[in-house]
Amino acid sequence: MGDPNYDPKNHKLMTFHDAIAKFRDGSDTPRAYLERCLERIDAIENDVMAWEIINTEPARMAADDAGKRYADGNPLSPVDGMPIGIKDLIETVDMPTEYGSELFRDHRPIRDAASVNALRKGGAIILGKTVTVTFGGGDPSRTRNPHDLTRTPGGSSSGTAAAVGGGTIPGALGTHARGSTIRPASFCGAYAIKATFGALNRQGVFSAAHSMDHLGVFGGDLSDVWTMSRHISKHGGGDPGYPGLFGGDRAPPPRKPARLIRLETAGWNQTDDATKAVFEDFLGGLRDAGIEIFDRTDDPSIDAYEQVFADIPELWRSLYRFEFQWPMLQYKERYPDQIPPRLLMGLKEAEGLSQAEYREALNRRVRIRDLHRQLSHRADAFVTLSSPGPGPVGLDQGSAVYNEGSSVIGMPALSLPLMAVDSAPVGVQILGQFDEDERLTAIGRWIAEEHFNS
Amino acid sequence: MGDPNYDPKNHKLMTFHDAIAKFRDGSDTPRAYLERCLERIDAIENDVMAWEIINTEPARMAADDAGKRYADGNPLSPVDGMPIGIKDLIETVDMPTEYGSELFRDHRPIRDAASVNALRKGGAIILGKTVTVTFGGGDPSRTRNPHDLTRTPGGSSSGTAAAVGGGTIPGALGTHARGSTIRPASFCGAYAIKATFGALNRQGVFSAAHSMDHLGVFGGDLSDVWTMSRHISKHGGGDPGYPGLFGGDRAPPPRKPARLIRLETAGWNQTDDATKAVFEDFLGGLRDAGIEIFDRTDDPSIDAYEQVFADIPELWRSLYRFEFQWPMLQYKERYPDQIPPRLLMGLKEAEGLSQAEYREALNRRVRIRDLHRQLSHRADAFVTLSSPGPGPVGLDQGSAVYNEGSSVIGMPALSLPLMAVDSAPVGVQILGQFDEDERLTAIGRWIAEEHFNS
Repeated sequence: MGDPNYDPKNHKLMTFHDAIAKFRDGSDTPRAYLERCLERIDAIENDVMAWEIINTEPARMAADDAGKRYADGNPLSPVDGMPIGIKDLIETVDMPTEYGSELFRDHRPIRDAASVNALRKGGAIILGKTVTVTFGGGDPSRTRNPHDLTRTPGGSSSGTAAAVGGGTIPGALGTHARGSTIRPASFCGAYAIKATFGALNRQGVFSAAHSMDHLGVFGGDLSDVWTMSRHISKHGGGDPGYPGLFGGDRAPPPRKPARLIRLETAGWNQTDDATKAVFEDFLGGLRDAGIEIFDRTDDPSIDAYEQVFADIPELWRSLYRFEFQWPMLQYKERYPDQIPPRLLMGLKEAEGLSQAEYREALNRRVRIRDLHRQLSHRADAFVTLSSPGPGPVGLDQGSAVYNEGSSVIGMPALSLPLMAVDSAPVGVQILGQFDEDERLTAIGRWIAEEHFNS
Repeated sequence: MGDPNYDPKNHKLMTFHDAIAKFRDGSDTPRAYLERCLERIDAIENDVMAWEIINTEPARMAADDAGKRYADGNPLSPVDGMPIGIKDLIETVDMPTEYGSELFRDHRPIRDAASVNALRKGGAIILGKTVTVTFGGGDPSRTRNPHDLTRTPGGSSSGTAAAVGGGTIPGALGTHARGSTIRPASFCGAYAIKATFGALNRQGVFSAAHSMDHLGVFGGDLSDVWTMSRHISKHGGGDPGYPGLFGGDRAPPPRKPARLIRLETAGWNQTDDATKAVFEDFLGGLRDAGIEIFDRTDDPSIDAYEQVFADIPELWRSLYRFEFQWPMLQYKERYPDQIPPRLLMGLKEAEGLSQAEYREALNRRVRIRDLHRQLSHRADAFVTLSSPGPGPVGLDQGSAVYNEGSSVIGMPALSLPLMAVDSAPVGVQILGQFDEDERLTAIGRWIAEEHFNS
């Protein structure tokens, strides 16, 4: 840990899909797989502090049950036997759900969130709860970056990202209303998807800003990320009223994109030079592979999109200020001592926004969504950074400037752990069109494989 | 009670807006108003059983506080000092929220639902929790119809409708995912609105079928119904991502409609002859007042709409079956003895619906919404029955056949207590266009006033 020579090409994440054949032929078992996870967790947990609780013995029993199903040739689903960590903003029936807050110390819902329920029903091992920033807010959690303990893991899905990015488990759930999935995935070197808004059922998940909140799915590669996501949607649905994630049970094969739109957004000016240089190199690699990269200088419609995108931070803020009021303003009024300082500050601002201003923000969102859709025939996907650099030193969550866009607009976003800056991970972010998560995953797979094979 | 001569024209409901001037000039006080409510409740509660809990002393203190504000000339809002009952599917911080279920005995959320919070912040007196059918499901509650104890009050907002329709309080909140607001309002002789989908914030409300769930607002006339609704939206928002209820703080003045579309829907064939005759009389009165009434025989586009409307019961069922799974399937699996029989039966069916079928149902809904919008220039509103007759004898909730349409499609619906059949109340239902709740309320006010003055 604190590897001064962090190199994404040599960084080993845990993957699950490749273990299934071994479970079937008896050369590995879900229990042995789980024990390897527990060993890896043991090795770093004292330093990284990614977990609120690990449900070791029930997990072992669940792994043994899965083992019997594989031995009988009857696994329940592609996630049967997969150890999964659950961000502590997400309800679990067998472990406390505390939202990172003393206010909910030992709070025990009598149900699993729809996503957790779908995974559990498919035989996944709900291994434990991962640390979250309190109510997903602005204050740091105790979790540290598994690749450099002096750096932040990002947040608010800090424990989720550290557990997966630290190579201790193959998959975990987070959430994302601002940057809480793509940012910590970037800092911790994990793969993650923030699927199209509404594609993964959020019932039973704490909501910070409900019209921008998403589940985030983290994994050791995009194949596992896809399988978990699609399983949640197929068996737990999308949000009520939404069609859910479209696609097959297994990850789509890698698909080479012909053209990508390179987005600057409000983030580029906040990006440090070292990260800019590494990203330009990365784009150079894509060009060398024959992919056209367009940007605002090549196409007026991309420039127009970049211009509205410059408003995203302020738009995000307006939506958040209005939506965050419930239930947080009440918690603040009744239990001011229980609300961390930055959350308190944010709540002070929230009280000022009128319904008229909120409606105007909703209208602006509609216009940006339309512009996003209009670019669908210009390229296969968008490419940008996942964060303006590696996780900063300290525990601060870091900047979400590259992440607010997909929170506001709701298009799907992937973070791919393909870069290193100052010997720390930085993610490549790929953005797609609404409901085209499967296509985006195929493109992401191609980019990741090309990068590692080149 | 059990008045064999129930006549809507002589039936006295409590209204609040007309008390405000008296609070201001000192000829009445919120405390005296509250005491009148408590006396009326005392007089019938043993028979009607509308309440889970009445928070008498805190309500008196809140009324006294409101009285001081009126005496100082500084009421907080148009609902300051208004006693309001809250359906027990809606979270309250100062009273248990039990969802009508033993599973949640003495369950105490640490927050008010967004709607309750908005009302409370405006000085409204959150008087108590009204009885709900367990989880808003199909089994009857103990509440009886205040106009005839042998009849059902309808459900699932049974206590809410009985308290307002019984003339004991001026306003109350219910919910509506199938017929739970318009149906009991019809049976109990109350005014009610089920506003446009998303117009009133549902956060902190138990959700039976989230893409069809609504808050329902009950009152002694449409002026109070509007004021409460608009206050909730202005101060608590609509659902996150929705613009909320459009309109002014005070109820719009009555507005005479030029044309109404009379809808049969799937309900007409299930309507008894006595109710049909009373409704035809009622429509005759509207015609006498110079209003044109169109129906499917007058216009092919209305006929086309009626044809798709015939599918509504099955479409409602598909959406419900998919959405009701979370969290109810988990409650059923873990606590089967705690789930009432009809709810259990419904849950058995829910397990069979695939995501593909659900998506098809969502697409059908989009098509019906489009047809609904296309009729906006044909008439000012739609008129139909609120229920196929008065509340049946017994405690069964009664038919929701006239109510599923606005649940599925989400357009606003009013129930006006303007008719009696067999000496029991039956509501007139007025339906409008999306987000035109204010215009619909103005039309409803005109119809109600014309009816009582003619």
